Amino acid sequence: MTQPTTPLLQHLYPTILAGGVGTRLWPRSRKHLPKQFQDLTGNGRSMLQEAYDRVTPLVPPDHVYVITNHEYVDMVQAQLPDIPTANIVGEPAARGSAAAIGLGAIHLLHRDPDAIMAVLTADHLIRKPDTLRETLIAATELAQTGELITLGIRPSYPETGYGYIEMGDTLGQFRGMEARRVRRFREKPDLATARAFLAAGNFAWNSGMFIWRADVIMAQFQRFMPELYQALTAIQPTLHTSEAETAFARFWMPLQGNVTIDYGVMEKADRVAVFPVDLGWYDIGSWAALLDVLPKDDAGNVVQARHLHHDSRNILVFSKDRLIATIGLQDMIVVDTDDVILVMPADRAQDVKKIVQALQENGLNEYLE
Amino acid sequence: MTQPTTPLLQHLYPTILAGGVGTRLWPRSRKHLPKQFQDLTGNGRSMLQEAYDRVTPLVPPDHVYVITNHEYVDMVQAQLPDIPTANIVGEPAARGSAAAIGLGAIHLLHRDPDAIMAVLTADHLIRKPDTLRETLIAATELAQTGELITLGIRPSYPETGYGYIEMGDTLGQFRGMEARRVRRFREKPDLATARAFLAAGNFAWNSGMFIWRADVIMAQFQRFMPELYQALTAIQPTLHTSEAETAFARFWMPLQGNVTIDYGVMEKADRVAVFPVDLGWYDIGSWAALLDVLPKDDAGNVVQARHLHHDSRNILVFSKDRLIATIGLQDMIVVDTDDVILVMPADRAQDVKKIVQALQENGLNEYLE
Repeated sequence: MTQPTTPLLQHLYPTILAGGVGTRLWPRSRKHLPKQFQDLTGNGRSMLQEAYDRVTPLVPPDHVYVITNHEYVDMVQAQLPDIPTANIVGEPAARGSAAAIGLGAIHLLHRDPDAIMAVLTADHLIRKPDTLRETLIAATELAQTGELITLGIRPSYPETGYGYIEMGDTLGQFRGMEARRVRRFREKPDLATARAFLAAGNFAWNSGMFIWRADVIMAQFQRFMPELYQALTAIQPTLHTSEAETAFARFWMPLQGNVTIDYGVMEKADRVAVFPVDLGWYDIGSWAALLDVLPKDDAGNVVQARHLHHDSRNILVFSKDRLIATIGLQDMIVVDTDDVILVMPADRAQDVKKIVQALQENGLNEYLE
Repeated sequence: MTQPTTPLLQHLYPTILAGGVGTRLWPRSRKHLPKQFQDLTGNGRSMLQEAYDRVTPLVPPDHVYVITNHEYVDMVQAQLPDIPTANIVGEPAARGSAAAIGLGAIHLLHRDPDAIMAVLTADHLIRKPDTLRETLIAATELAQTGELITLGIRPSYPETGYGYIEMGDTLGQFRGMEARRVRRFREKPDLATARAFLAAGNFAWNSGMFIWRADVIMAQFQRFMPELYQALTAIQPTLHTSEAETAFARFWMPLQGNVTIDYGVMEKADRVAVFPVDLGWYDIGSWAALLDVLPKDDAGNVVQARHLHHDSRNILVFSKDRLIATIGLQDMIVVDTDDVILVMPADRAQDVKKIVQALQENGLNEYLE
């Protein structure tokens, strides 16, 4: 089990990124209610609430920060009533994960110059939260030395949809967990390459979770993303003042592109470390992923609906209030919402993006909102 | 084109059978609104109204009769406001097509001892209504001689879901149309047999449409279905009187089984004739049949819904008010109603019956009503 707050953790600030729209989980994930605010797993807590629940055994609620789109600030407050309003950071516009993390970092530094930032996600399922907490403790210890730490997931199969981390020499044991030097970040591979990665044994999936000192990540921005750094340092003194809005308009809005932290910093930085761990980690970025991950009923189907079927298996069926009747379906997704029904084979789940794009192109925004 | 009413047609009474529930078109076809009362083809008229429209160029509205379940009498009246209430015959309970036809026959004889009854259906699509009318005229002429006439559809492929009529010698031309002696009725064949029927050339599909003198069909009941005959003759004097209800309770309700006219009479009778015709006739008894029959959009889909798709073809999509989004679907059926969504491959359309059965067994009658 995990420990209560200790001196080691008194500067730890879990910072949950929760700004995405979750396009590939349309029509459940919509602009007015993105996936992270929904209970997709059917356990009564939204994905954001689950992300929060995973860290509150380690730190008090007022140490948890959420970075989100300004439109969702009220929703975060409603779902996480125990964290202070000041901890909910609304971006006036999305400028990529590097900028979102930078915005979190200046909030933490505004409060605590020794802040250690744990960048966490709200769109993954983590079946072993105890292991996550143990890893966060170990990583906090290592982060104090100035390392940029990423959590790498031990791969169980040659997934082509994730980035990979190539691991080098060991950095030693921290609280019983091994950290290794990151040799290189590798973009989503083709299948042959993914298989080679698995065979090599020194590759991990890039989870998008990071631990570092807030001042250390700022130093990286200064070096590798100077425009972002300048914007952040200009905004920082105005936080929680009446001048913030003007500062954001002047310095944040003009930021270019949607630069990821991987591309903007991690691939270039020197002291990058990884804890390769087994967290029971699942990306639930698509309906097919939910079909893979969620518990199945006796007939082998993922059902969150009133479902009557004849000869159907390995299908996912979502509906709030309608009966879904299926006959002879296999490996299919059926998602019912108030105004849209989506039907597709599980192996076409990535193409939901194309439907969303077609809706945008045809001005059918009512089905996206 | 067809003729206006002539002396030949003055005793003709088109009698539309419209009592079924249309189980295989669930969830659109429901107890409170069976398929024959719905506009399944999207042309603005229900199937019953289309059946009516096909014959009113031949006879005045007060010559059209409808035999239906007593629960649907008001619906028939609402959909066919021009026919007299007395022409809408409600069965207190279904007792098979032979009994329904017998009930129609005694109504006709009550009005016109020389009545010629044309038994018509409300669950078929007929693309060549002119040919139907020409055939009805020819059949009326032949029926006056005492023949039991059936309309046979020239088969275009070896369908295994229909009964077949084996045709014998010609009976001559009637108004330019050939009638043939019926040698034998054949039940739904297996594929090899159906192929042999087509190759033989003297087989027609049994359409379920018949023309005969009302007194002649009553004579057949007397000979082959004496219990039915006795019930009908006991009920006949009470029609349109206050005693009818008692008579139905006493004589109709105890009738056994659901005997079809084919089994009860046609397979046994002597003077059975057939007009083999091409009516552009389609049984739309299942969702797969609708997919085959209804016009397709540019992408090759039958769509009565707001439909957005990516890479989908030969699918049928029905919804009143929701957007149906489909990705990578082929040969599929998606039917959306207020409370139920049905999804299945087209070749499983016969199994809708099994879902309906499961609903009944599980007491989920709300989804059937």
